[in-house]
Amino acid sequence: MPFSFHVVRSDSRTPARLGRLETPHGTIDTPVFITVGTRAAVKGIAPRDLHEAGAEILLANTYHLALRPGDDVIAELGGLHTFMGWDRPLLTDSGGFQVFSLATLRSVDDRGVTFRSHIDGAEFRLDPARAVGIQENLGADIIMAFDECVRLPAADGALERAVDRSVRWAGECKRAQTRTDQALFAIVQGGLDLDLRRRCLDALVEIDFPGYAVGGLAVGDTPDQMAQFLPQFVPHMPTDRPRYLMGVGRPIDILRAVASGIDMFDCVMPTRNGRNAYAFVPDGFLRMRNADLRADPRPIQETCDCHTCKHFSRGYLRHLFLAKEMLGPILVSLHNIAYYQRWMRRIRDAIASDTFDDMIRQCEDRASRAPNNDEAAEC
Amino acid sequence: MPFSFHVVRSDSRTPARLGRLETPHGTIDTPVFITVGTRAAVKGIAPRDLHEAGAEILLANTYHLALRPGDDVIAELGGLHTFMGWDRPLLTDSGGFQVFSLATLRSVDDRGVTFRSHIDGAEFRLDPARAVGIQENLGADIIMAFDECVRLPAADGALERAVDRSVRWAGECKRAQTRTDQALFAIVQGGLDLDLRRRCLDALVEIDFPGYAVGGLAVGDTPDQMAQFLPQFVPHMPTDRPRYLMGVGRPIDILRAVASGIDMFDCVMPTRNGRNAYAFVPDGFLRMRNADLRADPRPIQETCDCHTCKHFSRGYLRHLFLAKEMLGPILVSLHNIAYYQRWMRRIRDAIASDTFDDMIRQCEDRASRAPNNDEAAEC
Repeated sequence: MPFSFHVVRSDSRTPARLGRLETPHGTIDTPVFITVGTRAAVKGIAPRDLHEAGAEILLANTYHLALRPGDDVIAELGGLHTFMGWDRPLLTDSGGFQVFSLATLRSVDDRGVTFRSHIDGAEFRLDPARAVGIQENLGADIIMAFDECVRLPAADGALERAVDRSVRWAGECKRAQTRTDQALFAIVQGGLDLDLRRRCLDALVEIDFPGYAVGGLAVGDTPDQMAQFLPQFVPHMPTDRPRYLMGVGRPIDILRAVASGIDMFDCVMPTRNGRNAYAFVPDGFLRMRNADLRADPRPIQETCDCHTCKHFSRGYLRHLFLAKEMLGPILVSLHNIAYYQRWMRRIRDAIASDTFDDMIRQCEDRASRAPNNDEAAEC
Repeated sequence: MPFSFHVVRSDSRTPARLGRLETPHGTIDTPVFITVGTRAAVKGIAPRDLHEAGAEILLANTYHLALRPGDDVIAELGGLHTFMGWDRPLLTDSGGFQVFSLATLRSVDDRGVTFRSHIDGAEFRLDPARAVGIQENLGADIIMAFDECVRLPAADGALERAVDRSVRWAGECKRAQTRTDQALFAIVQGGLDLDLRRRCLDALVEIDFPGYAVGGLAVGDTPDQMAQFLPQFVPHMPTDRPRYLMGVGRPIDILRAVASGIDMFDCVMPTRNGRNAYAFVPDGFLRMRNADLRADPRPIQETCDCHTCKHFSRGYLRHLFLAKEMLGPILVSLHNIAYYQRWMRRIRDAIASDTFDDMIRQCEDRASRAPNNDEAAEC
C-alpha cells in the first residue's frame, strides 16, 4: 500500500493532532500546508528553492492543466512530477472549484459539467470519470473527487443539490479509478449547514475514502463563520483519515482549523501576497512598497532564515518592486512560503510538546489586541 | 593596489589574448562576458543562481540607479555589492549611453547634460564629476568615464564633437575620482572613423587609465561593419590594459572581437532573449513557444549542465511560456546566461590550447553555411 496515514499524537486539550502521511513520493508530517502551483509551477519559484524554503508537498490544478498543456502532454512527458521537476508529494485538485468559478458554464447536469475554457472559449466537458482520468494522467500522489462547489450565500436548494451530486460523483470517481498508487480524497460540501455537511460526510464515509476534504469554505463565508463552523463539524470526520481544509488561509485561520482537528491546508496567499509586495511578518504584513523601507537595511524578518532574509534588505526589495523587477515578487514569495512552513512547524512543535493550547491562547489574545491588522493576524 | 590586469597568454595567430583581471572583489579570467543587471538585479535571477551559472562579474547602470532608488540610498544600504547581494566583481556603466538613448534631453553643453528622467520627467543633470560621484556611492570595482555616445549614422561633425567632449570629460572624471579602490575605465568614441577613433584613443592614453572601452558600437552600425572595424582598431589599444567592447553581443560577434584583441563584453542578449522565449543552442535559437516542442522531453541543450537543462524539458518550458508563468523567462534566462559563460570558457580554452584559430575557422564556416540563422550564428 503506497499510501497511509496515522495519527502520531492527539492534543490533550483540543481536537488537534500530529499525523504522518506516507505517499509514493515521500512522507509528510501533518498539520501540513500545501504550496500552490496551479499551472504546474509555483509562480516564479523553482522546485529546489521551494524545498529549501521547507515546502514538502505542492498542489497543481486539474482544470488548468487539462486545458493547457493537456493532461495527455504531461503524461507523455512522464507525468506531473517529472514535468514540473518536483519528485516529492503532489496533490491535484479535481477541477470542480475552477469549473464553477473560472469557466463560463454551459450546463450542469447530474452527470457532469459542460463549460467553455476561460483561455480560448473552447467547449469542454468534465465529469467524475474524466476528472479521475485526467488526474491519473497527471499522476499526483493525492487526487481529489470531482465535486460541485457552491458559492455562499447559496440559493434555496442549491446546497442540497450540490451535496447530492458531490456524493454521487465521489462514488463515480472511486469506481473510475484504475491506478492503485494514488489516494483519492472525497470532498464534503454543504456550506455552513451542519446537518447537510454531516449528511454529506456520512454518505462519503459509507463509500470509504483514504482522506476527506472540507470544500466550499472560504468562498463567500467570513473567517469568523468558518471559525465557528469547523469545531462543530471536523470532530465528526473519521479520526483515522487525513482531513483537508481546501483553500485556507491566513496563519490564524490555519491555527484555528488545526485546533478543530484539520490536518492539511492549501492557499495561494503566500505567493499571491508575495507578488503584490506583502511580506508576512509576525506582526502582520510588511508592505514592501512603503516609503518607510527606502533605506531600511534589515531583512523582512530578523528571525527568518530564508534565502531572502539572509541576503536582501527591505530597502533592496522595495527598490525591486518600484523598479518592476520580477526578482521582487520572487524573493518576497520565497519568504512567504518559508514563513508559512515555519508557522506549520511551530504548530506541530506546539502539539508535540503539549503547548498547543498556550499557542492558541497567545495568538488569539494578540489577534484581539490588533483588530485593525486582522487581515494579517498571526499570533 | 586593489586592481591589476595582466596578459597571461597571447594567441600565436591572432591578437586574441588570455588575461587576468584582479579587483577588490575577486579575480576574473578574460575574455569575460559581463552579465547585465541594469537596475541592480539581473532580471528574475538571484545572485546565487547567477554564480552557479558561471557569472563572475555583473554590470549595473549609473543612470537607472541614480534616478531610482538613488545612489545615496544604495550608499546608505552599504553600497551596490551589499545592496544586490553580490560579493563578486561589479562594473557600473557611466550613464552616458542611457542619457543619450533613454532620457528626454534638455541640453548638452561642453560641461555635461541636462535631461528629464524617463521615469517621472524630473529634471536631472549629469556631468563627469557627478557621474563619478554616483559611481563612488555605488562602489563597483570598475567604473566608467562619462562620455557622449552618438548613434550611427551621425550628423556631420557630431562624432568629432562627441570625441572631443568624451576626452575632456574622461579627464574630468579622473580628476573627480576620490576612491582608490575603483578602476576608472575610459571610453573611446568615434564611430566607424578609424582616424577619429585613434585620435580619441591617443588622447585618452595620454591621460592614462587602467582600462579602455570601445563605446558607440552596436548602436546603429551593422555587425559586419563592426567586424571589419575592430581588427583595424583594437590592436592599437594598449596591450597591458583590459579592452572592453561595450554592449556586444551575439556569440559570433564576441568571438570575432576576441580575435581582434577584446577582453571584456556585456550585453542584455542572454536575459532579454530568455524573457522572450529564445534559448541559445549551438545551432542558433530554440524558440520555446514553438508547437514542435509541445511534448519534447529533451532539455534545451543535451550537453548543457545548467540548472534548467538538468531539470526541465522543452515541453515544460514551452508550457510555462504559453501559461505566462514567470518561471519560463527565469529558467530560459538562466540557461542563456550559462550558455554565454560556457561560450567564453570555450574561447579561453581555445586560446590556452593554441586552437583559437581553428575555433574561429570552424565557427565562421558554420555561420556562412547557415545564412538564414545569422542572428543566432555561434559556430
